[in-house]
Parts: sequence; structure tokens; C-alpha cells
Amino acid sequence: MNRQTDDLLKAELERLTQMNAGYLGYPLARDFSFDALAPFLNLQINNVGDPFTPSSLTIDTKEREIEVLHFFSKMLRASIENTWGYVTNGGSEGNLYGLYLAREAYPNGMVYYSESTHYSVKKNLHLLNIPNIVIRSLDNGEIDYRDLDRTVKLRRHRPAIFFMNVGTTMTEAIDQLDKIKAIITKYALKDYYIHVDGALAGIMAPFYKEKPKFDFQDGIDSISISGHKFIGSPIPCGIVLCKKEHSDRIAKSISYVKTKDTTITGSRNGLSPLIIWYALKKLGVSGLRQRYESSKELAEYTLTQLTLIGYDAWKNKNAITIVLKKPSDLICKKYQLAVQDDIAHIICMPGIEKSQIDALIDDLKETVFEKPPLVEDFNAMMVEF
Amino acid sequence: MNRQTDDLLKAELERLTQMNAGYLGYPLARDFSFDALAPFLNLQINNVGDPFTPSSLTIDTKEREIEVLHFFSKMLRASIENTWGYVTNGGSEGNLYGLYLAREAYPNGMVYYSESTHYSVKKNLHLLNIPNIVIRSLDNGEIDYRDLDRTVKLRRHRPAIFFMNVGTTMTEAIDQLDKIKAIITKYALKDYYIHVDGALAGIMAPFYKEKPKFDFQDGIDSISISGHKFIGSPIPCGIVLCKKEHSDRIAKSISYVKTKDTTITGSRNGLSPLIIWYALKKLGVSGLRQRYESSKELAEYTLTQLTLIGYDAWKNKNAITIVLKKPSDLICKKYQLAVQDDIAHIICMPGIEKSQIDALIDDLKETVFEKPPLVEDFNAMMVEF
Repeated sequence: MNRQTDDLLKAELERLTQMNAGYLGYPLARDFSFDALAPFLNLQINNVGDPFTPSSLTIDTKEREIEVLHFFSKMLRASIENTWGYVTNGGSEGNLYGLYLAREAYPNGMVYYSESTHYSVKKNLHLLNIPNIVIRSLDNGEIDYRDLDRTVKLRRHRPAIFFMNVGTTMTEAIDQLDKIKAIITKYALKDYYIHVDGALAGIMAPFYKEKPKFDFQDGIDSISISGHKFIGSPIPCGIVLCKKEHSDRIAKSISYVKTKDTTITGSRNGLSPLIIWYALKKLGVSGLRQRYESSKELAEYTLTQLTLIGYDAWKNKNAITIVLKKPSDLICKKYQLAVQDDIAHIICMPGIEKSQIDALIDDLKETVFEKPPLVEDFNAMMVEF
Repeated sequence: MNRQTDDLLKAELERLTQMNAGYLGYPLARDFSFDALAPFLNLQINNVGDPFTPSSLTIDTKEREIEVLHFFSKMLRASIENTWGYVTNGGSEGNLYGLYLAREAYPNGMVYYSESTHYSVKKNLHLLNIPNIVIRSLDNGEIDYRDLDRTVKLRRHRPAIFFMNVGTTMTEAIDQLDKIKAIITKYALKDYYIHVDGALAGIMAPFYKEKPKFDFQDGIDSISISGHKFIGSPIPCGIVLCKKEHSDRIAKSISYVKTKDTTITGSRNGLSPLIIWYALKKLGVSGLRQRYESSKELAEYTLTQLTLIGYDAWKNKNAITIVLKKPSDLICKKYQLAVQDDIAHIICMPGIEKSQIDALIDDLKETVFEKPPLVEDFNAMMVEF
């Protein structure tokens, strides 16, 4: 039995190692090593309840968790005193939490979000039982501001909850806060809430040459960012940050529970805060910046190569995601490209080698046939036929 | 910077190791070692979406996860074909999920649960926005069936959602399904749902000499059990199982998302399924049984010793939790006993040594003063005074 268990475990490790090396289409950095954390696997760790409230049993890593939250608070220009948050089990939980805060702020609110939004959002809106409307997207994946305008216009009597993407799943598009705010101003909305899904790009955008508006100084109410994506982690994780007034509202409404715990779960993972903390300490701000610069360079290189071989591809400014015409199933599988309808994407995450991009380009080159005839030529052909 | 990071990490490890050795009052086994899983810390693992639906990127441990779910399905006498579930981030998430299923089954339902229920349940009922009523508890922590009867009686027009404890947090009490069913029969309820919170005892109760009724054959709809408690884990984790008809209902209501994913989050932890799987494989059913027997023996020993020194204490039948009059703050802190009002408890989890119990008894012995005088004696004293 135990022999068999060990064999199975070994096989699992080998398979995962192999699968980790191959993918080009998923937003998961793989250049990390957490060997230093191995001894923690033999300990009970539990960051139960509120990160800022000491546990009665201190088998937690709350001090490290708070350091992580402060790091992100600074990066997102939040006031340390007026900001609350915690390390989540991934981007979806952070979005769930942000929408929960929004619902409590405006029980009669309507959520607006683009059709490019991650599918888990719809799922969690259902869980939270909040009315919501999907807004069309522009071709690049940004929310269609005209459609948003028209839709909000008809519902000026309801508080508006804007779910804003900073890096959509498929094209890494960033919704423009200024344009959303213009709609808020146009319709004199006084009751509104802005949550940001910064799953992938929330940690990179502060390093853009022209930083997009999406942080607390810019006027958002809450944000969710993944830890396992750009930093990389064996466990899905992330952070959620919000204005303290919102988490205080929750604390108040559940105060009859006699707990200060406003997190979603009771027992909370104490290993992932340690993972994010360790990575942030090792990288530092300069390491993160460098990491983004390298990814962006590789993305630009990839786009150039695709263009050179005449393959249909494009990317959003600053993005590390290249959108391309869906290659053959064989190629998509070989390079583990993520596909949606007739497009696919490559995400140049830390850990991807230039040689892997070159190999893909070589394979794609062979599939670029002469371009199909233009409509005029086609008509001419038909006449000749 | 890196030197300092490593030093901090070392200090954190030492502190956690020390804190892990000391507690007697928390339901967290500590006799585990997951060194074998250390290499997995350097890999991206993600059991994204439904465990039974293959991921497009197979950096998952879904096969192991399914084995874990089947193990619990068998233990809880569930039909493999008609049961669905997943590995959660802990008991609270499992309860949240069970209540979510209940709400979807009966949108107009009323949730009934005892005042001994874990505080996270109230929190999650708020999140899910389900009306609910707290029922009084009996002295031993079981739900007060009379109060439940009277409360349900007044609400026969609403579907009833029973949240049943199998091992309450403070006294490890088990609500009796037969008595709940008697109320269902008495008021001819046709629309009802039974969710079981088996956080701690759900994995031990199958080994009781007289097994309490709480599994799928007994007629429950869903159950949540923790993995990090009785098995032990560096990460809070657990399983949730439900009748497939309930998860199918969710799948249907969110089908416009075009996903079969009915879990709460998108990306899901793939390390904790591996942790539970590995522990279950190493222990097997006989190991689990032995584990429970040892804990129970130690609990009986503890109760005997407390009684011998004349210290007020008791425990529920089969329980490994001993409830005692709250000792001094000093003693509670020294042995990390969990306290609620004027009582405390010791939980004889795997990993606790008899010598630790003996040391506690020695300390308590010194605090057992002569008993306070009886009322009659007191009155006599007052007359004399």
C-alpha cells in the first residue's frame, strides 16, 4: 500500500513537472522555488479570522500577512490606516468579497461588468444574489463605454456597482476608470461602488510607463489581485484590499456573532501569506519591475515574430498577452494555448523561455498559407469560373 | 535584505514549532509529516473548476481529489454516481456551499440551527442572504428539540433547512437526526433540506460503537468535514459532499456562464487534495480507526483524572472533547485551552501526549480548593455570623 502510494506520488510529481514546463497560454509564472518553506509543511498553520486581530492560538503567520497587505497597500496608494484586507485563496475569492462589500453598501445596487469578465464573477453574483447586467465589450476587450452609458442611463434610480477589469482573461484589456467616472458625473450618480479585478495586471500596471488609473488614490473602493499568477505559487492565492469603511460595515452587520472576523471563511490558510511574503521579500519592488519588463519584452518579441511570418496577431499596449488567430488543435495542445472561439492567446509569464516562443513560431510558420483571395479577386475568380 | 528574510523565516518556523507543541484546546491534530510533498512547493498546481471535469491545462491533482471524495463517499454511505463534491479550503467553505445548495433548492427556505453552531455559519448565512433562526441548545450542546419543534410549528408554510451539528465546537455534541426527522414527520414537511456540519466528528463518528445517524443513507443532503482537524494539515482544508441533484441544480442555474464549474472559486487548491490523499493512503481505514480509539482513550483518561482530583468536568459520549470549569487565565494560556464564558475545553487530538495531560492535571490539582459551602451551610454560617 505505502509503496504504491509513494510510486503514485512520484508519478504525480513527474507529470506535474512536465506539464509545468510546457504551457504558453496560462497566466501562471513558473520560475519560483519555495524549498525554504518545506519545513512548514509539517506544522499546523492557521490565520483564523481577521488578519489584524491577534488569534488566541498563535499558530498563524498574521505578521507576515500584514506585511504583504501593507506592501500592496503602498503599491496601490492606499492609506494604511483606512484600508483593510486579507490574503485570499485566489482572485475569485477577492472578487466575491469585493462584491459582498458592494452589496452591503448598496443592497439595492445593480452590478455592471463587461462580457470579457472572468466567468467566476457571474457565478459569484449568483451566490451573492445581486442583480447584474453584462455590458458589451470593445474589440480589444475593454468594456464598451457607450453601452455602459446607455445601460446606466436607464437605471439612474439604482445605486451602481462597477466591476472593472484591470487585465481581462483573454486579451489583458484594462477598463478606463476616467470613462467610467465620466458616466458617473454625467448622470450625477451619488451612490456608486467601484471594484477592480486586477487578477493578473493589478500587480504589473503600477510599473507601466503610463500607469492606468485603478488604485485607491484614483478612487476605487476595493481590489482583488492574484498571487499565484504573476508571482507564482503552488497554491492559488491573492489579496483583497478595501476601504476600511466597507469592511467596518460588514463587521457591524454581523456583530451579533460577537466576532471581529469579517473574512469569508473561519480558518484561513497561513501558508500562502508566507509564500507571497517570501517571494515579495526576495524580489523587492525592483525585482517585480524587472520581472514585468522582461515579460513585456518577450511579449513584444513574440508579436514581432508573429507579424514577420504574417500571422494574424495583436496585443493591448503594455500587455504581456498576445492574441492570435486560433492555430490548429495540434499546435494549441502542444503549446497549451488557451482558446476562445476563433482566437487563442500566449501569455509571456515569467519562466517562459524565448526558445519556446521560437519553437512555436517555427511551427506556426508552416501553417501560414498564401492569404485567401480578397473579395474582388474572389469575384473575378467566380466570373472566370 | 535576503539575509534578514531568511532570519525572519527561521524565527517564524521556530515560533510555529513551539506553538504547535503546546496547545491542548484546539481540534488540530499535529502528528503529521508531509516532507514527501515538499517538491510540489516548486510547481504550479491548480484544480481549476469541477473536480470531475478534466481541465484544459492539466496541472492539477484531480485524480487524487476524486479518490479522496470517493473515500469519504464510501465512509458516508453515499452512492458514488449520485454524489458530487470537492476538496474545500476548510469546514466553513463546505458549510457555505451546503447552505448555498439549500437556498437554491428552497429559495423561500428558513434555516434552523442551534446556538452551539460555529460562528462562521451566521456569517455565511449573511453572505448568502438566507433568513435563519437560532434554536436554543441543551446543556450538552445538542440542539433543543422542543425549541426546534415549537419554532418549526409556527413556520410550516416555509421550506425548512436544518443545519445539523455532528460535533459542536465547544462540547462536541451531536444533533440527533431521528429527533429532527420526527419533527419533519410531525408537521408533514415535504420541502426540507438537511446539511451536516461534521467539521471535527464527521470523520470520527463512523468509528463509534453506536454510530449516530448523519450520513447519506440516513437521509442527509450535504455534509462538510474538515481535513486539517482530525487528519492534520499545514493548510486548512476539507471536503464537501452533496446529492448530485443539488449540484446539478446549481449547474443549471448558472449554465449561461457556459461552464460546468459549480464550485465557489475558479482556481482551486491542488495541494490540499494531495495532502488529504497522502494522509488517507498512509493511514487507511484501520489507521483512522486506531487514531480515533487512541484519542478517545486519552479523553477518558483525562476525564477520570479530572474527576479524581475533584475538578468539575464532563464529556459527551464518544467525544474526545472534555468540558471543564474554566481554570485560571494563567493555566488556560499555558496549555492553550479554548475558553467560552465560564467553561474551557481540552480536545484530545492525535499528537497530544499523556504527559501533557498529566502536567495539566498537576497544575489544576493545586487550584482545587475545598468546595464552597452548600446553601444550607452558608445560611447556617450567616446565622452564626
